[in-house]
Amino acid sequence: MAKLIDGKAIAATIREEIKVEVRKIEASVGKVPGLATVLVGSRTDSTTYVRMKRKACEEVGIESFHTELPESVSEEELLSCVERLNADPAVHGILVQLPLPKHINEERILSAISVEKDVDGFHPVNIGKLAMKSRTPRFVPCTPRGCIELLVRSNVSIEGKCAVVLGRSNIVGLPVSLLLLHRNATVIVCHSKTQDLPSVCRQGDILIAAVGRANMVKRDWIKPGAVVIDVGINSIPDASKKNGYRLVGDVDFDDCKDVCGMITPVPGGTGPMTIAMLLRNCCDSAKEAFGLS
Amino acid sequence: MAKLIDGKAIAATIREEIKVEVRKIEASVGKVPGLATVLVGSRTDSTTYVRMKRKACEEVGIESFHTELPESVSEEELLSCVERLNADPAVHGILVQLPLPKHINEERILSAISVEKDVDGFHPVNIGKLAMKSRTPRFVPCTPRGCIELLVRSNVSIEGKCAVVLGRSNIVGLPVSLLLLHRNATVIVCHSKTQDLPSVCRQGDILIAAVGRANMVKRDWIKPGAVVIDVGINSIPDASKKNGYRLVGDVDFDDCKDVCGMITPVPGGTGPMTIAMLLRNCCDSAKEAFGLS
Ligand SMILES: NC(=O)C1=CN([C@@H]2O[C@H](COP(=O)(O)OP(=O)(O)OC[C@H]3O[C@@H](n4cnc5c(N)ncnc54)[C@H](OP(=O)(O)O)[C@@H]3O)[C@@H](O)[C@H]2O)C=CC1
Ligand SMILES: NC(=O)C1=CN([C@@H]2O[C@H](COP(=O)(O)OP(=O)(O)OC[C@H]3O[C@@H](n4cnc5c(N)ncnc54)[C@H](OP(=O)(O)O)[C@@H]3O)[C@@H](O)[C@H]2O)C=CC1
Repeated sequence: MAKLIDGKAIAATIREEIKVEVRKIEASVGKVPGLATVLVGSRTDSTTYVRMKRKACEEVGIESFHTELPESVSEEELLSCVERLNADPAVHGILVQLPLPKHINEERILSAISVEKDVDGFHPVNIGKLAMKSRTPRFVPCTPRGCIELLVRSNVSIEGKCAVVLGRSNIVGLPVSLLLLHRNATVIVCHSKTQDLPSVCRQGDILIAAVGRANMVKRDWIKPGAVVIDVGINSIPDASKKNGYRLVGDVDFDDCKDVCGMITPVPGGTGPMTIAMLLRNCCDSAKEAFGLS
Repeated sequence: MAKLIDGKAIAATIREEIKVEVRKIEASVGKVPGLATVLVGSRTDSTTYVRMKRKACEEVGIESFHTELPESVSEEELLSCVERLNADPAVHGILVQLPLPKHINEERILSAISVEKDVDGFHPVNIGKLAMKSRTPRFVPCTPRGCIELLVRSNVSIEGKCAVVLGRSNIVGLPVSLLLLHRNATVIVCHSKTQDLPSVCRQGDILIAAVGRANMVKRDWIKPGAVVIDVGINSIPDASKKNGYRLVGDVDFDDCKDVCGMITPVPGGTGPMTIAMLLRNCCDSAKEAFGLS
């Protein structure tokens, strides 16, 4: 059986580290970091994610400022909300929960967030600097940063290894590929147009799965001993559960657990890390704003 | 023997296309596109490159504005030169020839070029949009764009193919990897830390070599039938030449020519394409500025 990479425990450690830092910041400047969350509409998953993020802020002493806007909000109203938060000195990070309603241009909204407060790291200038050699992005997107943090804190060496990234989305696959490349992995990026996925994936000493397909990755996709990071969060029907479903990853955990060297569980793997990295980015942003970094 | 991809001929065709477009632009608005070149110091190679670029502009009817600054120029002086060109409505593209002297912060200069005139495509916001799905960069960097253009005009299908990119620089390897990914190749990026380069390269249906090592890629690095784009421009001693040297690529052409399906020669492959793409970017920029696109 593979070693479990316990994302929940690692995230808890990181949150403790941040809690200590927030106290130090407060002691030194009399202020705390602040995160603004913006929720448009009332999707159940989005509402849950925003609630979890705010709760996590509270636990480490980061102040959270919440704005709820109706599904029908106009692009201009949302933009002026973002601009108000850009100008607010108590706010060090702005998180507009995605997805946005169809009538709103997501690119326009995300580009309006000040680069200095873009704790999600999705601004093109942030992604550009993340992509380029010898540039430092202001923020690294949370989920990709969480994947790397899991590898590093599990003492997985990345340099010279073959890392396969399954998925190439702007939020996960693409930035995690770039981060692995900068850490000197040989990187293979695959996606829905890739031929013979199993044999491509089987090359990975490290395999990052971020496709959003329940249990897609099977044991014969995995190089024996590989380190597997499962980013997928998919709900599948489960009659034995009260709410009628349960969450599984993109990797068929039971099928694969004996073949890989290490693996993250779902839930309890990358999910908690994403929130921990959001707190990390927010704390770093405040330190920069307070001249402490 | 592999089919030769004749970059010189393809570039000539593109330059003819641009020449026609420039005439149309002039007929429609009474103005022509303008490219500003900035040369700092007097490196022989840089001087040659700038001269070739200006000459190419002239041939297609693009006006070129040239500034020469001494090696000792201060960062502030160079910045104000860039700002003057940013403000000049006759200038649609600004090209600061690299490398810059060591006392000048290259990142600061490149970021100062207006994104609207960044025909080299090296501004982080351009690279960010190039990296991201569903975003359109204002300009695609010239050499990478030239590589793709060579494939497209040689009827090489990219989707679903395995593309190996040898090198990950900001100017060539990284952006060409991203372009191949957006065209739905499965992309492998390798570099100086990659283990067992020959067998990694041998996976490529398409192999792009951009390492700057004369004749490094040998026949056993190449999948039989692969399409090979050689970006390298390396000078090696050659007593039979008047100037004592000749240019070769990163691929050992003679050793490889029988195993690949198609290959670009050096010189006469990607080199002429880079200049053609610069003219293309400059022309596109002018059309945008004149409201013609
Ligand atoms: N742990 C966490 O905190 C987070 C988890 N997630 C989860 O991660 C997963 C991925 O999310 P996200 O990146 O946003 O998803 P997207 O839908 O944006 O991207 C999915 C990627 O997977 C590829 N893909 C889809 N189906 C297949 C297939 N059958 N074979 C090969 N490739 C395929 C797509 O390819 P193509 O580009 O060709 O369409 C695309 O690149 C989801 O389960 C999501 O819930 C997301 C964010 C945070
Ligand atoms: N055709 C044209 O118009 C142009 C041609 N060129 C030519 O292309 C070549 C590359 O240029 P550029 O990208 O700017 O060069 P850089 O030196 O910036 O990058 C070279 C890349 O190759 C990798 N590399 C170097 N040595 C090795 C090795 N032994 N094994 C594996 N990888 C290696 C490096 O790896 P690492 O990142 O690990 O250091 C790096 O990623 C040069 O010959 C240059 O003259 C460049 C621009 C335009």
